[in-house]
Parts: sequence; C-alpha cells; structure tokens
Amino acid sequence: MAKPIVTARILRRLLNSGVYVRAERLLARMHPADLGPLFADLSPDETRTVIDLLFRQRRAAETLMELPPELLPQVFDAVTDTRLAEMLGRLEIDDRLELVDAIPEERLGEVIAKLPPHARDELRKAELYPARSAGRVMTTSFIALDEKMTAQEAIDSIRAADEGDGSILYLYVIDEVRRLRGVVPIRRLVSAPPDSRCGDLSVEVPVSVQPEADQEEVARVVARYDLLAVPVTDVDGTMLGLITVDDVIDVITEEATEDIYHLAGLSEEDRVFTTAGLAIRKRLPWMVLNLGAVFSLAAVVGLFQSAIEQTVALAFFLPVVAGMGGNGGIQSLTVITRGIALGEIEFSTGLRAMAKEIAVGLAIGSVCGLLSAGAAYLWHGSVVLGLVLFAAMVVTLMVASLLGAAVPLALKAIRQDPALGAGVIVTTLTDAVAFVAFLGTATLLLDRI
Amino acid sequence: MAKPIVTARILRRLLNSGVYVRAERLLARMHPADLGPLFADLSPDETRTVIDLLFRQRRAAETLMELPPELLPQVFDAVTDTRLAEMLGRLEIDDRLELVDAIPEERLGEVIAKLPPHARDELRKAELYPARSAGRVMTTSFIALDEKMTAQEAIDSIRAADEGDGSILYLYVIDEVRRLRGVVPIRRLVSAPPDSRCGDLSVEVPVSVQPEADQEEVARVVARYDLLAVPVTDVDGTMLGLITVDDVIDVITEEATEDIYHLAGLSEEDRVFTTAGLAIRKRLPWMVLNLGAVFSLAAVVGLFQSAIEQTVALAFFLPVVAGMGGNGGIQSLTVITRGIALGEIEFSTGLRAMAKEIAVGLAIGSVCGLLSAGAAYLWHGSVVLGLVLFAAMVVTLMVASLLGAAVPLALKAIRQDPALGAGVIVTTLTDAVAFVAFLGTATLLLDRI
Repeated sequence: MAKPIVTARILRRLLNSGVYVRAERLLARMHPADLGPLFADLSPDETRTVIDLLFRQRRAAETLMELPPELLPQVFDAVTDTRLAEMLGRLEIDDRLELVDAIPEERLGEVIAKLPPHARDELRKAELYPARSAGRVMTTSFIALDEKMTAQEAIDSIRAADEGDGSILYLYVIDEVRRLRGVVPIRRLVSAPPDSRCGDLSVEVPVSVQPEADQEEVARVVARYDLLAVPVTDVDGTMLGLITVDDVIDVITEEATEDIYHLAGLSEEDRVFTTAGLAIRKRLPWMVLNLGAVFSLAAVVGLFQSAIEQTVALAFFLPVVAGMGGNGGIQSLTVITRGIALGEIEFSTGLRAMAKEIAVGLAIGSVCGLLSAGAAYLWHGSVVLGLVLFAAMVVTLMVASLLGAAVPLALKAIRQDPALGAGVIVTTLTDAVAFVAFLGTATLLLDRI
Repeated sequence: MAKPIVTARILRRLLNSGVYVRAERLLARMHPADLGPLFADLSPDETRTVIDLLFRQRRAAETLMELPPELLPQVFDAVTDTRLAEMLGRLEIDDRLELVDAIPEERLGEVIAKLPPHARDELRKAELYPARSAGRVMTTSFIALDEKMTAQEAIDSIRAADEGDGSILYLYVIDEVRRLRGVVPIRRLVSAPPDSRCGDLSVEVPVSVQPEADQEEVARVVARYDLLAVPVTDVDGTMLGLITVDDVIDVITEEATEDIYHLAGLSEEDRVFTTAGLAIRKRLPWMVLNLGAVFSLAAVVGLFQSAIEQTVALAFFLPVVAGMGGNGGIQSLTVITRGIALGEIEFSTGLRAMAKEIAVGLAIGSVCGLLSAGAAYLWHGSVVLGLVLFAAMVVTLMVASLLGAAVPLALKAIRQDPALGAGVIVTTLTDAVAFVAFLGTATLLLDRI
C-alpha cells in the first residue's frame, strides 16, 4: 500500500501545478485497482479533474468498480448524470448493477434515462433477479461454441474474439437453442483433428447454477470444486451467463465482512472511511436496542436490592459473572455461526454441535468457578460466597454455551441471518441468567455469607 | 448438503451388508469434495473400510485434502504409517505440507521416513519457508515455456502435457536459467505464426511474489488484480512455483475465520466438530485470562464500596454502563480490524479512522446518555443520578471507541495480530473506565442523589 500513498502525493502536486499532461501519463500507467485507493486522499476538485482525465482515457468506468464503496458518493458528486450514464454503459452487466445500487435514488431515474436503450433493457432484465442472487453477479458476455462447430472453426472463433468479449476460462458448448451441452478442455481442442465436432470433444459440465441461487451458495460451489467459473442456466438448461472466480472472491470477502459485522451489530455500509454521520445513523438503532437490553438487566439486579444492601460485596462480583458469561456465550456463538457460514453445519448436526458446546461450557464453568471461589475466599474470607460464585459460574457458562449455540441455529431455522442480532440476544440473556443465578443463590444463603 | 447426508446413509448400509463392490462404485462416482463431509457420520471401522476402498481407486490422497480438518485425526487413526506415506507421496507439495502439519507429532518421524526420497527432499526444502508464506502454498508443478521455443513447439508441449502436470491458467515464459520472462496469452499463442518465438509473443507479467511473502498479502494481490494465478519468484527472478486462485480462495476463507475467531479469543483449531476435549484445552487459557480481567474489574467496583453502601441503586446501573461501553468498543474494534484485514487502512489513515470512531462514540454516547438519564429519572426520581449516568455514558462510549480503534492499530504497529486478544483488552479497559466514570462521579455528587 506504500506505493499508492506516494503516488497520491505526486499526483496532487502535478494537478495543483496544472501539469495535466504528466498527471494523465501517470494515471495511464497505473492499474485501475491501484487507482481506487488514491481517491481517499483527493479533494472534491481534484477528484473531478482525475475523473475527467480518466474519462478521456476511457478508464473511468473500470476505475469506479475498484473504488472502496464509501468513496463512491464523493466521485458521483463530481460527475454529471450524462457522464455517469456513459460510464455505466461501458460496464458489463454485473458491474453496472453493482454501481446502479450505489447511485443516490434522487439521481437514479435521470441517469438510467440517459443510458443507451440496450443497456437499459439489460439492466431491467437483471434487476428481476433477487438481490444477492447468481443472476445479479453473472456476466452475460462469454464465448460459447456451437456443438456443430469443428475444432478448427472453434479455434478461429477464439482467435477472432476480442479481449473484451469475455473470458475463455472454459470453452462451453451450446446447442442451437443455447442449451448448455458441455465444456471442451482447451488442450483437447488444440490437439483434436481440425474437423472433429465440438459436441464430440466436450465433456460433462461438473456443475451449473440457476440464476435465483444465492450468491453465497454459488461461492461455496466454486470454492468446493476448485472451479474458475460456473455457468448459470435456467430450468431448461439454457445458458444465461457465467460467474467467474474473481467475482466469487469478492462475494466471499463481502460475506465474511457481513458475518463479522453482524456479530457486532454493525451494518455492512459502516466502513473505515464511511462518514461519521452515516456511521452514527447506522449504529444508533442497535445501541438503543442494546440500551433497552441493559436496562432490563438493571431491573433484574434491582430485584435483589435487599440482598445487595445486606452484603454490598455481591455488587463487586456482578462484572465477574456477567463478563465470563458474555465471553463464553460469544465463543460458542462464533464457532456455530462460522460453521453455518462455511456450510459445515445443518440442523441435524447442529444439535450434536450444541451438545458439545454445552459440555465445553460445563467444563470451563467448573474450572473457572473453582478459581473464582478460591479468589473470592481469599479476598472476602467467606466460604459460602465462594460456593455461591462457583454455582453461578457453572450455571452461567453452561447456559451461555447453550444460548450461543441455540440462538444462531434457531435464527437459521426461521430463515434469518444466524449472526444478525445474535450477539445482543446471547449476551443479554446470559447476563440475566448470570445475575439471577448469582444473586438468587446468594439470597438463599444470605445469612451464612 | 442434503445429498451427502443421504449418501452417508446409503454408503453405511452397503458397508454393513458387506456389498463392497457397490460401495466402491458409489464412491467412484462422487467428487472428492463431496466425499469429505461423509466421514463426519462414519464409525472408525467404517472409516477404515472407506479409506481402503478409496485407496484402491488411488483417490484416498485427494479425498484427505477435502476433509474438514477436525475429521483428520479419525482418518489418520484408521491408516498405517506406510499407507499414510504413500498418500502423502501422491500429493502436490503444497497439499503435502498442509497434511504433514496435521499429522500427530509422534507419528510424523515414522511417516516421513517412509516417504520416497524425492518427496522427502521436496518437503524439507518447502519447510524452510516461514509458516503461512507464499513458499508454502505454491505448487512447484507447472508448465513453463522456454523463450526460445516456437509457437508450434509450445502448442505441442501443451498437448503432450498430461492433466496432472499442472495448470495452464497462464503460459509463463522462462529463460535458460529459469528466470521468469513474461506470459503468453493463450489466444496470442494460438493465432501466432507457428515459427514465432515464445519470447517475442510474451507480455510482461503484471505481478509476481517472493516465497517469503505472507499468504494473506498474496491473496490480496490476486483479489486486487483479478488474477487466476500468481508466479512465485526468488530475488534473482527465478520462477519457483505458482499460487493458483483456488488456493487463494482457501487462504481468504481461512483468514476470515481467523479474524472472526480472534475477536472472540478462539483458536482456529476450535471448529464445530472439534472434540469437546480439544475445545476445552484451547478455550480455557483465554477464559482464565478473562477471569483475571473481570476480577480486576471487581476490584475497581470494590474501590467504591462506601458509595454503593450509601446508594445501593448504583449497583443496578453497573450492567448498563458496562454493557453499553462493551458494545460500543466491540463495534469500533470490528470496523478497524476488518479495515486492516482488507488492507484499507494503514497507520497514517488509521489516525483519521480513529478520530472518526471517537466522534461517533461521542454522538452515540450523548444520545444514549440522554435516554439513560431519562429512564433513570423515571425509575428512581433522581435528577442527579440521571446526570451522573449521562456523564458516565458519554465518557464511556467515547473511550470505548478510542480503545476499539487504538488497540488493533497499536497491535498492528508492533506487528502483532490486530484482532488477537484485542476483544479482552478493549472490553476490560472500557468496563474499568465505565465503572470509574460512573461510580466516581456518583461519589462526588453522592449527597445529592
């Protein structure tokens, strides 16, 4: 990352001194992926100039695709609707869709109206597929060989194809109604007699996906079978498009971010360089929800007011039971949600996984309970307080593991995101159990502490 | 996942009724990636039989590579050292290394001694590269074209190459001392005059990595430039191997798991179907560390014993300030660690990101502080208690955001994993600040509550 930072400084100096020719040459030499991060350091005026220069090189559209999403608004602000439409028109349909999703709603109508009719139609068709489905990440520009073509004709058509005509990761073979018939390994094509038919050279396509399939499922298939691309076919087997491994990598990264974020109650849009305003708007609802949760915990503690009045030391141990329970719950929650995300766990095996988590919670609760009891005895000299802490720790950690496993499995069973909200639910319920277990047992044995 | 479960049942029935021929036929029809999950449902005896059958088909080694890591011990137990060595010998070096890392130490010497000398040498050489480096994930079996070869000779050599000889994702060109000279686009090779030299057809390799590079850095390069493979070269430019995109996908998934796990203080080996014993051994040290942390929090609360004795209601609000602070801290921590993992953040931009987090914490603290003050007033009728809660909430959430951002940046600055341990540090420090802010202010204003 050191290179782009240096380049940003040089670029800015060239822009500020008006040496646009050299700035343009510098930009021309850079890979679009390296151009993206530059924008984080540019002012709105500089952004406008750089986009103008890139536009002249016909590289503005591909550069946009490489921008971190939080920098897009700044770039959109610097471009007119016409120019934005021109850039959209140059992108492949999957990239176009992605960018359209980022354009502010108030400009969207105007921008789409300015698209070439063909690009607009393509967009309308693609938008019929559900969000995050294969139909939205597939590219519709790919080379397919007719099954009646000869090997020589196939090679000629590959030669004739321009780089922009899509990838030749796999050579798919289709019949006269575009139904996917197979795939020709490139070695086989090259070494075949020139007059052999593609249909005869092809082997079975190991796996294809339907356009409605969830993008996460597609990513799992590609990763599982080590594919470079997977064809998208409709129910009749007609080949609609292709999802390539570079898009799969983006999906995997995006879904991992989502998993990590949802465990913390964060929205995917809330990134490192999102504006503070957006971050506040996105986080505040969760924090207010959490506020409700912690106030209910305060009410739980309030139930034991007289016990705390009698033995104020009980209050000292509230962070102990709550802190341990919270941590134990989050550990189980993390193992289970990650297992679900990686497709390692289904409901049936989920029960087995849950049983294991409970056993782990019981064991860790016993060890930590003993240690806590010892520490409490040394600190306050009360055996009974130690016993109370031991009992509370065992119960809390067992319940924490149970909840950490059960909540995501239950969310999955009702077809919700297993991670979203699970953190707040698990820690709040665990804390409540911890306080009741600890203060409840203490109340029962109060006169002996 | 439905299919493998059904298959497991059928397979088990075939095995139990001794119909090995049909079991073998069933196994032969399955993709190794689909065989892996089967093992979760097999008994040790059944495992042994299935491995025997796969071994006969020479598919045992590739199947091993597809197993979830927690199932490997069960399979290793079912195979002799000789057989294990035979399987290892059949794998490519990157896969062999991965499997060797999973073999229990007490068997490793024996197994390696039984490897063919060539495979053993290769292993020794690869083990010289640091853990998680490019040198360990690269494959050393690839097709490279000599720069003096003609296009026709190159095509002939690709034809002659056997599928097992490595991928032809890119056609790399090397000189007489195996220095990487460029890459020939396959279209260009096919359409070139048969007597043109490969050296003249090649274009510059966009990026290569050194064997010591961190695998995460390699994954980032491949994802960033949308590559299918990246060559590994030493300082002289000699081509040593190739890292393909399927391995990159594994690295990305693995690193995402690690990031999620480290935030919760979990070890990567602690997976859904790890045995309870291993999970306990892995989690216990963290939980004991956390126990120390929460006991220190108890000591902090203990400092304010007289305040709590005087106004017991203060104890009720401990979960409120701690719970909100913990949540806020984890949110900032998550945004920053994910930003670091995705390469979006460096130390310089880190300071800007930290400033933003603090601003967000301040804003959320103010809103939640007001809400809490209102709730506390309604509940206890004390304006002063409300004010105390407001002040504590603002301070706590600001410090929580500061710590959530600063701790991972600091860990990164001293070249530690930004996520590992950060969760415990951030929540413990935040809770301590929360208790001091809340109970401290309360002590000052005590006679007015």
